[in-house]
Amino acid sequence: MRQIGIGIAGLGTVGAGVYKHVAQNRALLCERLGVELVVRRAIVRDVHKPRVAGPPAAELTTRWQDLIDDPDVQIVVELMGGIDESLALIRAAINAGKIVVTGNKALLAEHGQEIFALAAHKKVPVFFEASTAGGIPIIKTIREALVANHIVSIHGIINGTSNYILTRMTDAGLDFAEALAEAQAHGYAEADPTFDINGWDAAHKAIILASLAYGFWVGTDKIFVEGIDKLTATDIRFADELGYRVKLLAIIKADASLPDGGAGNSGGIEVRVHPTLIPKTHVLASVSGVFNAVAVRGDVVGETLFYGRGAGQDPTASAVISDLAEAAIALGGQHRTYGFTPHGLYGTCKPLEDVRSRYYLRLAVDDRPGVLAQVAGIVGQHDIGISSVVQPETHDAADRAQLVFMLAEASERQMQAALADILQLACVTPPPALLRVESFS
Amino acid sequence: MRQIGIGIAGLGTVGAGVYKHVAQNRALLCERLGVELVVRRAIVRDVHKPRVAGPPAAELTTRWQDLIDDPDVQIVVELMGGIDESLALIRAAINAGKIVVTGNKALLAEHGQEIFALAAHKKVPVFFEASTAGGIPIIKTIREALVANHIVSIHGIINGTSNYILTRMTDAGLDFAEALAEAQAHGYAEADPTFDINGWDAAHKAIILASLAYGFWVGTDKIFVEGIDKLTATDIRFADELGYRVKLLAIIKADASLPDGGAGNSGGIEVRVHPTLIPKTHVLASVSGVFNAVAVRGDVVGETLFYGRGAGQDPTASAVISDLAEAAIALGGQHRTYGFTPHGLYGTCKPLEDVRSRYYLRLAVDDRPGVLAQVAGIVGQHDIGISSVVQPETHDAADRAQLVFMLAEASERQMQAALADILQLACVTPPPALLRVESFS
Repeated sequence: MRQIGIGIAGLGTVGAGVYKHVAQNRALLCERLGVELVVRRAIVRDVHKPRVAGPPAAELTTRWQDLIDDPDVQIVVELMGGIDESLALIRAAINAGKIVVTGNKALLAEHGQEIFALAAHKKVPVFFEASTAGGIPIIKTIREALVANHIVSIHGIINGTSNYILTRMTDAGLDFAEALAEAQAHGYAEADPTFDINGWDAAHKAIILASLAYGFWVGTDKIFVEGIDKLTATDIRFADELGYRVKLLAIIKADASLPDGGAGNSGGIEVRVHPTLIPKTHVLASVSGVFNAVAVRGDVVGETLFYGRGAGQDPTASAVISDLAEAAIALGGQHRTYGFTPHGLYGTCKPLEDVRSRYYLRLAVDDRPGVLAQVAGIVGQHDIGISSVVQPETHDAADRAQLVFMLAEASERQMQAALADILQLACVTPPPALLRVESFS
Repeated sequence: MRQIGIGIAGLGTVGAGVYKHVAQNRALLCERLGVELVVRRAIVRDVHKPRVAGPPAAELTTRWQDLIDDPDVQIVVELMGGIDESLALIRAAINAGKIVVTGNKALLAEHGQEIFALAAHKKVPVFFEASTAGGIPIIKTIREALVANHIVSIHGIINGTSNYILTRMTDAGLDFAEALAEAQAHGYAEADPTFDINGWDAAHKAIILASLAYGFWVGTDKIFVEGIDKLTATDIRFADELGYRVKLLAIIKADASLPDGGAGNSGGIEVRVHPTLIPKTHVLASVSGVFNAVAVRGDVVGETLFYGRGAGQDPTASAVISDLAEAAIALGGQHRTYGFTPHGLYGTCKPLEDVRSRYYLRLAVDDRPGVLAQVAGIVGQHDIGISSVVQPETHDAADRAQLVFMLAEASERQMQAALADILQLACVTPPPALLRVESFS
């Protein structure tokens, strides 16, 4: 199988995750892409540092120029962070004709215009799914899935650290300093949390989303940014009493008057990031902890919302690898797909009788002593646990009592056999109500 | 600009929507795609029927063979529904080398294996985003954005009619027949709602999602399907008391033991559609009315969820047009994108002072008569409406009262000017708390 060579700049949390998952899901990726992704080189600060995941020491280097010079590296993955060195690397990669994948939101927010102008000039793709909202494919969604739409608005909870802090201030009544300390203890906030709590991490992502949606790069001086660092527990409580949750929200909106037929510019867009009161009934109000969510309204599609983990090794690695897949397709020059890719890694459906579930079982029964014991006895004979039994006071029209069982996990085979036996009982009047319970474990 | 010719088979609700939005957002689509999408022909049952949206009568035909024979039609969009004629059209289109876009879930669930085998053999792409969950780009997401992942599970609310009926049974205590009649009156259920309420509409979509995730076509005889038609208001009420919502859920799961390194098959997958009790605290429990949602868990990305309208003219048209964009890129053979497409339809950020919002304003004030009137007077002078005022009983450490205003929409300029005047009052002690309120209107 043809190999695609990858150079990773930066083997920190995300870089190591990319290396690990490209290796672990190698067979699946080969089947889906028709090529093999191979990490050929990685740039690190210290070649001799012990690592949990990463290429052999011989493939490590401290000089990013080595990635550019290596003819076997076709894709450069920039995960170093920072600005100056990352920008130099990306410029050099584009000039050398190597496809770039980056997760560097600050770099794109500040230098996106220059980077994409150079990329267009050199006809080299630059992918950046990992720059915004980690595991949520919001870049691909806005760029491709919603291509038919003028974007009316975007509302995003796109900083997990802030959202964790606000969730704890709301649910546990902590004040800001306590919640921040807790976030740091759990690894949800960095030692220096400045950009998370002053709003600028979210602002960089908002600039990327707005630029993508509206087709021009939004300057950092054109947006309003306020963090959560001055927010008090008092205001969160008062907001709660008024029916609101406080979230750090990125808000991107175009004027209602959409541009017509390319005749000219619209009335302008707005981009802002600040603590925001949102009605408790809105779905964004229920996005808790480190999770992110982005609600996008398009003029054709209407309301949509995308939810997932916004940061962390694995979700961000998933985003980087989806960009690697795009890059591999761009390198191949082949059609992306015929819509459905068969692969041989799965291939059987489990027999229905073996499918396991929890169950809700309601029976109409004679209202006399001993009935519950009889039914429970049969359930036990079939080795099915009973989580709870309720006998509501209400009777049906025929004055039968209602018995409601919540049953533990069992196979369909067990459950149907038990039910058949239960229906043999003279004290049980059919039909029973059998519903399955999903606990998302 | 180069034109891409489209033939639409079926000018019903969705077909007319595609025609309308391709025309309305023509400039935007041209900028984003670099080619112009032009509907050249449409197949209809009656050429002379009056239409709100559609091509001129001269471009209408009743014979689908006309789409195949027209050399200017490069993409065939199948929106006729049904099985036999659609299958014949799609076969003919693929054999003629024309890219196919279809929203026909029943056809794919029953004949997907044959269609995609032919497409792969002829190297012709077939796109089907509109077949499943309308405005939610779940096909693209599973196929591309989550390409790095073994899909651990998919849980979907993917039939809007059922979800509307269940929502009304739950919230308004209606019985099944009443809720169905209401759905029909609102146009959320068809005159013949059989496939919506017996679960098979959702089952067809589940087959498509499972086949996409696991790489083999799942037979209709391999899955468990139960509709909502036998569900009683009694069980919905009992479930509610136990802490659950009842939803028609499509559940797709792979065994926990994932296939390793391509060495062999896993233990099998399960696909089922049935009324399901889900904990009220789970985000899927809050998906109401005709909205759809699909939760996907990947082994790398973790939990994700995608939410939007699952049916209707506009959301489905948005999905079809995203497939047309894919098709146009496939026809061009060019790189999909350089990651960011500049276009000239927008280009300005609104000055921050002009941005409008609602506001929450909390002030620490002297606890004496007349203070509220003074503050309210200033707010009024700046032409800002007051939605509500609360003076909580609690005082702060310095024994000042707290005044909390919810203010009507105003510009940032108005609000800042009003606040500056308010802070001139001797009875007000800084700092004030000013937060913005988003009502998602």
